[in-house]
Amino acid sequence: MLGVFTPDRRALTLSELSRHAGMPVSTVHRLVSDLVAWGALERDPAGCFHIGLRLWELGSLAPRGLGLREAALPYLEDLSQVTRENVQLAVREGTEVVFVERIAGSKAVPVLTRVGGRFALTATGVGLVLLAHAPADVQEQVLNAPITRYTERTMTDPRRIRAALADTRSRGYAVSDRQVTMDALSVAAPIRDAQGEVTAAVSLVVRHGGAAPHTLAPLLLTSARAISRALPAAATRA
Amino acid sequence: MLGVFTPDRRALTLSELSRHAGMPVSTVHRLVSDLVAWGALERDPAGCFHIGLRLWELGSLAPRGLGLREAALPYLEDLSQVTRENVQLAVREGTEVVFVERIAGSKAVPVLTRVGGRFALTATGVGLVLLAHAPADVQEQVLNAPITRYTERTMTDPRRIRAALADTRSRGYAVSDRQVTMDALSVAAPIRDAQGEVTAAVSLVVRHGGAAPHTLAPLLLTSARAISRALPAAATRA
Repeated sequence: MLGVFTPDRRALTLSELSRHAGMPVSTVHRLVSDLVAWGALERDPAGCFHIGLRLWELGSLAPRGLGLREAALPYLEDLSQVTRENVQLAVREGTEVVFVERIAGSKAVPVLTRVGGRFALTATGVGLVLLAHAPADVQEQVLNAPITRYTERTMTDPRRIRAALADTRSRGYAVSDRQVTMDALSVAAPIRDAQGEVTAAVSLVVRHGGAAPHTLAPLLLTSARAISRALPAAATRA
Repeated sequence: MLGVFTPDRRALTLSELSRHAGMPVSTVHRLVSDLVAWGALERDPAGCFHIGLRLWELGSLAPRGLGLREAALPYLEDLSQVTRENVQLAVREGTEVVFVERIAGSKAVPVLTRVGGRFALTATGVGLVLLAHAPADVQEQVLNAPITRYTERTMTDPRRIRAALADTRSRGYAVSDRQVTMDALSVAAPIRDAQGEVTAAVSLVVRHGGAAPHTLAPLLLTSARAISRALPAAATRA
């Protein structure tokens, strides 16, 4: 029943919970009481239910969530302070990117992502890195599904995306140019576990027309390697 | 069953899960399969189960977790960059502090806390702020329970703690001096919601013998007010 809470639906009344979960109000009432007692849900004065702090605490034990984030944070901070641009850390979950950390640059270009949010693999720098190193069946699944167009520059042709993935592998980093908004581009590099598997990606999102992507690549590549070295063994397991 | 995962117990085999949950292996096996399918748990190559990214994503919807953290982060970053000390953001859950964010200073004194971790209210600056503004029954519950001693400076006498709470209310900030480790002290200030209720606290943890607490107080007080103003309405609900 907790699955009815989404980034767009964070506060729900009892009757909304019942409707979205497809369960009778009486059943939901009993379940919700248990979940509130445990702390998985919290009730606000207006009578709406939210995800509770106890569930956030439990989620913080996920190796691919806070574990990865804790190891990477000092390097993300360095990138942020040196460039003053947006820094992002992401992993792949199925056929989507999940953003594990995001540090907004003080005067940087606005970005649409948020921590805990999902996005298309093909439209983002981190996504291209993660897809370029994903198993072949995941790549096929993504390329055979409809691809959302955000701007006139969003790649939707599978052949073009395949070429971008090949470029990402051969150069060692990805560039996603104005695919999400027309004023921004991202440059991303792979983070690898002790076995050399790509398990996460780090990116800078900068204003289009500012720094050229190839001048940012060395920064991303060295930061990604530093994070790879700092990863605890558990944070790299999928 | 997910409650058997704790900060000290993040990876469990099927038989450990069965033992800690007090349920037969066959039942646990069925439950775990469902939880893995949903993404609440992940299985690593060694056969251990961890909290999954899907649960981390769900937890990220908690207003008192990432909601609060997102609103506060720019001000925490400012504090971190200006002071180079440890910056912490915390809320109260029952009779304990839960750390929602922590930025380690580059050359700062080591601290024991971690994001998503819990600590005693009476031994930390943020805890003293949160306890000073907690309902009377919570204060009584904390003061009547045994209090863990971390160092020779840890306050365990309820009368001394009551005086510290009164000081915290009258001065507007808390000082916790060498209560957790003998080389560190923290200075903390309250974050208030639109109704003026204290819902979170922000602190700096600095080396004992460095900056005097009263010189740090104005920094904390102004940052706490800036965060209070930036809070979305939902992040302040308990």
